Amino acid sequence: MSIKVGVVGGSGYTGGELLRILSFHPGVEIVGVTSRKFKGEPVHRAHPNLRGLVTLKFTETLEPVASALDWVFIALPHGESMKVTPRFTASGIGVVDLSADFRLKSAESYKTWYGREHMQPDLLDRAVYGLPELYGNELKRARLIAAPGCNPSAALLSLAPAVSNRLIENGPVTVTALVGSSGAGRSSSVTSSHAERTGVMRAYSVANHRHTAEIEQELSRLAGSSMSVAFTPVSVNNIRGILTLSHAGGRARVEELWKAYREFYRGRKFVRIVRDQAGELQRYPDPKFTLGSNFADVGFESDARLSRLVFFGALDNLVKGAAGQAVQAFNIAAGLDESTGLLQPPLHPA
Amino acid sequence: MSIKVGVVGGSGYTGGELLRILSFHPGVEIVGVTSRKFKGEPVHRAHPNLRGLVTLKFTETLEPVASALDWVFIALPHGESMKVTPRFTASGIGVVDLSADFRLKSAESYKTWYGREHMQPDLLDRAVYGLPELYGNELKRARLIAAPGCNPSAALLSLAPAVSNRLIENGPVTVTALVGSSGAGRSSSVTSSHAERTGVMRAYSVANHRHTAEIEQELSRLAGSSMSVAFTPVSVNNIRGILTLSHAGGRARVEELWKAYREFYRGRKFVRIVRDQAGELQRYPDPKFTLGSNFADVGFESDARLSRLVFFGALDNLVKGAAGQAVQAFNIAAGLDESTGLLQPPLHPA
Amino acid sequence: MSIKVGVVGGSGYTGGELLRILSFHPGVEIVGVTSRKFKGEPVHRAHPNLRGLVTLKFTETLEPVASALDWVFIALPHGESMKVTPRFTASGIGVVDLSADFRLKSAESYKTWYGREHMQPDLLDRAVYGLPELYGNELKRARLIAAPGCNPSAALLSLAPAVSNRLIENGPVTVTALVGSSGAGRSSSVTSSHAERTGVMRAYSVANHRHTAEIEQELSRLAGSSMSVAFTPVSVNNIRGILTLSHAGGRARVEELWKAYREFYRGRKFVRIVRDQAGELQRYPDPKFTLGSNFADVGFESDARLSRLVFFGALDNLVKGAAGQAVQAFNIAAGLDESTGLLQPPLHPA
Amino acid sequence: MSIKVGVVGGSGYTGGELLRILSFHPGVEIVGVTSRKFKGEPVHRAHPNLRGLVTLKFTETLEPVASALDWVFIALPHGESMKVTPRFTASGIGVVDLSADFRLKSAESYKTWYGREHMQPDLLDRAVYGLPELYGNELKRARLIAAPGCNPSAALLSLAPAVSNRLIENGPVTVTALVGSSGAGRSSSVTSSHAERTGVMRAYSVANHRHTAEIEQELSRLAGSSMSVAFTPVSVNNIRGILTLSHAGGRARVEELWKAYREFYRGRKFVRIVRDQAGELQRYPDPKFTLGSNFADVGFESDARLSRLVFFGALDNLVKGAAGQAVQAFNIAAGLDESTGLLQPPLHPA
Repeated sequence: MSIKVGVVGGSGYTGGELLRILSFHPGVEIVGVTSRKFKGEPVHRAHPNLRGLVTLKFTETLEPVASALDWVFIALPHGESMKVTPRFTASGIGVVDLSADFRLKSAESYKTWYGREHMQPDLLDRAVYGLPELYGNELKRARLIAAPGCNPSAALLSLAPAVSNRLIENGPVTVTALVGSSGAGRSSSVTSSHAERTGVMRAYSVANHRHTAEIEQELSRLAGSSMSVAFTPVSVNNIRGILTLSHAGGRARVEELWKAYREFYRGRKFVRIVRDQAGELQRYPDPKFTLGSNFADVGFESDARLSRLVFFGALDNLVKGAAGQAVQAFNIAAGLDESTGLLQPPLHPA
Repeated sequence: MSIKVGVVGGSGYTGGELLRILSFHPGVEIVGVTSRKFKGEPVHRAHPNLRGLVTLKFTETLEPVASALDWVFIALPHGESMKVTPRFTASGIGVVDLSADFRLKSAESYKTWYGREHMQPDLLDRAVYGLPELYGNELKRARLIAAPGCNPSAALLSLAPAVSNRLIENGPVTVTALVGSSGAGRSSSVTSSHAERTGVMRAYSVANHRHTAEIEQELSRLAGSSMSVAFTPVSVNNIRGILTLSHAGGRARVEELWKAYREFYRGRKFVRIVRDQAGELQRYPDPKFTLGSNFADVGFESDARLSRLVFFGALDNLVKGAAGQAVQAFNIAAGLDESTGLLQPPLHPA
Repeated sequence: MSIKVGVVGGSGYTGGELLRILSFHPGVEIVGVTSRKFKGEPVHRAHPNLRGLVTLKFTETLEPVASALDWVFIALPHGESMKVTPRFTASGIGVVDLSADFRLKSAESYKTWYGREHMQPDLLDRAVYGLPELYGNELKRARLIAAPGCNPSAALLSLAPAVSNRLIENGPVTVTALVGSSGAGRSSSVTSSHAERTGVMRAYSVANHRHTAEIEQELSRLAGSSMSVAFTPVSVNNIRGILTLSHAGGRARVEELWKAYREFYRGRKFVRIVRDQAGELQRYPDPKFTLGSNFADVGFESDARLSRLVFFGALDNLVKGAAGQAVQAFNIAAGLDESTGLLQPPLHPA
Repeated sequence: MSIKVGVVGGSGYTGGELLRILSFHPGVEIVGVTSRKFKGEPVHRAHPNLRGLVTLKFTETLEPVASALDWVFIALPHGESMKVTPRFTASGIGVVDLSADFRLKSAESYKTWYGREHMQPDLLDRAVYGLPELYGNELKRARLIAAPGCNPSAALLSLAPAVSNRLIENGPVTVTALVGSSGAGRSSSVTSSHAERTGVMRAYSVANHRHTAEIEQELSRLAGSSMSVAFTPVSVNNIRGILTLSHAGGRARVEELWKAYREFYRGRKFVRIVRDQAGELQRYPDPKFTLGSNFADVGFESDARLSRLVFFGALDNLVKGAAGQAVQAFNIAAGLDESTGLLQPPLHPA
């Protein structure tokens, strides 16, 4: 029997990706999807790729189907999500929130980085950080899941084995993230137009990006002590995909890194360790080979000359960096195999 | 119980796409895949996207697994395929050939367009043209399937209802096809390099492209009389995707066209008719909304001022234009539902 | 002594391109540039490429510098231009208008295609169509120049020699134009965003595009009799560049076409005839090789099998299809060599 | 009277760019250009953009025109250049070498990083490093110029003012360089094909890239003490353009950085300091705004929270990162204004 799910905020890119994945998921039935802008219109008006596959119409809220709902996925902007979440949690409906509203453990930290008071500080404790490779056990009982975004997902998955094995000797960790345009959501600014956005190599939010807080929180937990992260996102000429390059001091050799990563990710279906010798070239993770899939590819290099380590994390920001990961976390919480509906191979070349 | 399949010529883009689709297909088991260049190496060396999903190694031939084979997919270049096909057909193994070798019904026409003698003229009669929307019945008993390529697939699917309803009043049909780089296969020429190929708008094989023969053959069959096609392919700045724009004389109104297309494709899962009013704009098919899927989107316009008709066909050249269509035709011949393993939604935005 | 010029509507792409070209032009001095949106701001706020090269600020109008002006370039939307043009022509200031407002010779035709009454029908006769390869003599005395847009420029330059030599035997001429995103101007719609616009192959305004009127007007003049054009623009994945492919009936052989084109463009600096044998391939015009330059590349093919001719026109839509051509026409009217300031080589690879 | 120049190795991208720039340079005449592969063919066979603009044919060597030569530009691969350089220097012909052969001051360091003995160690002392913003005086008398490549140019120009003002307090400097496909030269490998190279985010030569040596050499000279650089290049989805992001420890405030950069680059024509507030966004350098030009845009940020500094350098790798810079250095050595022939504005949008 299918689990009944709804999607709140279904007309953006994360919403569309949730619909793409959930409509193909053998264990769920989508009973409602909301959009203020598109209410009353068929889903394929916002997502022409889903023509003939998702036949629902957008509604303004999930009220009409609320009594049938088992779980909701919330794909609203930061700050909007915490306004509606309590309605669902109060009714015993499971919530997977894809915004940043429940990712930080401290309401104070939320205020520092997001510049406003948290409206539901009591829910922060109940929320489980939805990165299954780190919180697999906690997710089994979760009813409020805070799914992480693309930057923290790529950074944390690529750094976690090294940090938890104390292979990073001195910080801060310098994280550079190359990001595609879909990460900024469905946008209509001049800056995001094809002619302006194509071909950019453009750093933004240098030294003050909000995702820094999440990455520091989780790395510190893994390390058992406070860690600092200097995070720099750079827009590049892609629609999908994120690559994080992280530098830190350390003398671990490649063999030690291999061992740490193999053990950490043993048995995990969605993390692939990529470090191949192809002719004279060393091949590292590249999000091109994860396109449309829930895989995260991670890799590393040791720079013996300077006693430094470099880490790479690559994934599709809308799948493993958003909707796919949300479904993976949901699967665990709903008692399904974590890979249910998520094993489509990446598309290549594309 | 799974059907045992092999792939001959598995290191190119069509081969990789066959592996991507077949590895996710619930009714088949891949028992062998060949590549001269990559023999002995794991599949992910040629197709890094399949790392962790396809664990076979390439072999030089399928000999070692021949006795286990039920069907083979042949993804060799034109002219190579007909050399190996008889080995399989002689052993009762079903064959889906993705080259052009068995698409033309006449050995003479093959010689005219391909500049060489056909080596297996007796097999031409047994081959069924693998376009399931036109040959669904014939495919049920087929043991040798000649899967069409991307240009004919897009052109034929977009024109078939008009032609079979005699809505085209005078010819020739002028077909312009915009094509991505993956259509030329895995290439290492200077001309196909990123710096040279990015951003092109480049016509080629004008007035002499070989696919003309296939399109004329099938349109003439549908029309019941000889039809001429002026075919012009143009390379554009995409990896995947093909759009055909076809012009011909005709006075049919849009309503008549709607009716003809609706009836022709009633009950077909993989053809979507696209003609939406979105604000002031009319939306026609665009391969962007079919990416990674087996859908073909078709549409049309009537130019009353000049008594002319315009037809659009859009699809992913590696899926509905190659590997996906081959699997769809195979499904029918193997007694499965034609959509088995092929219903993944298109990816958007990507 | 420099000619003093102003630019009206300088914050869009055509305006920016005018500033790029005029700032590098040895015979002119830019004395003013207007923008409502950016008034008071430095030019590099709208055009960051011009930082350090154009140090003007945008003003709301050219009033403050009107008495110093010799010529103005108007880069306003269709319909806006004819509101301001008379102010300049009445003061004896030469005008190069880049909108469509003065391109059609008949106010009636303007109403048919643009859906509104022309506000300055008496100026239509005085306007010279600013395609220097067709109107070189008329431009010498012009004081109001209607610079054509990218679609008509590419189509007309590629067809003119064939049409004027009566090599097209039966019509209509079917013109397909592949166009980049900059042709739509500086836009902020969702549809034009990077994620939505990248990778499209999307026909629009099929059978009703306004530029049809211009192309028919000028071809008919060249032919000496009425000609019909079925024009279909298709958005493709480029920022700059346009390629027109035109089909028509005709039996001229390639040698005849060479002769007609060579003679027609003898001595013209900005039209290059492209038809090379490169190995087995025939090379036709591609806008990639005109990027950033004022060149138009034209070519042709003869399809003897079907008695049809194919014509290609390739250019940079913002230069030879807009600002560069406007400056070329201005040069002639101002008594300068037509190539002054316009001979920068195209950029490749880019 | 024109200076007579030749180009050795003119069929690659750097060679093509030299021809593009030199053919438009008012002070030089190109008297010969060599290519083994294209000897006897017209230049536009290799560089279709130059059709009609450069009418020379490639020759195998410059022997036939040697007596007329004043200067040669050598655009051969590393290791090849030092084989031919002495022939020219011995005849008193000025040489601008665009390879890495004469950039390092020590033959030992050359052997360490390039894995072979230097063939002309005595010429290393005579060579002047061709970065005009650092070696303007030395270049005035240079007869052998070692023009730097794109990575060192962007890194050094963005770091020089900070390093020479001792604003970097602890190292190493972590330099990440995003690079386009043209930086790898004219290539025909499968890996560099359009389908494989489009959309990559791919680190390579991590911890062992040869350009590290140059950057360390020049930064150490500026600092007056040894500096270490951890350099990571990453291929991204562009043809042209490079962006370097450099991180290091430091507490300088933004005002101090402004002051240091303004003073260092006062009067320099080709370096622009970019740090704008555009609405809520801070705008940093982006190579998109330098396309086709000789400009280098530099910028910086101060991360007070972590006492770290970030530096950005953006340029067109084929112009300011190769051919343009070579011509700029040549201009100085030849007694011309350094900007002669180099002031074309960048192209935007493109």
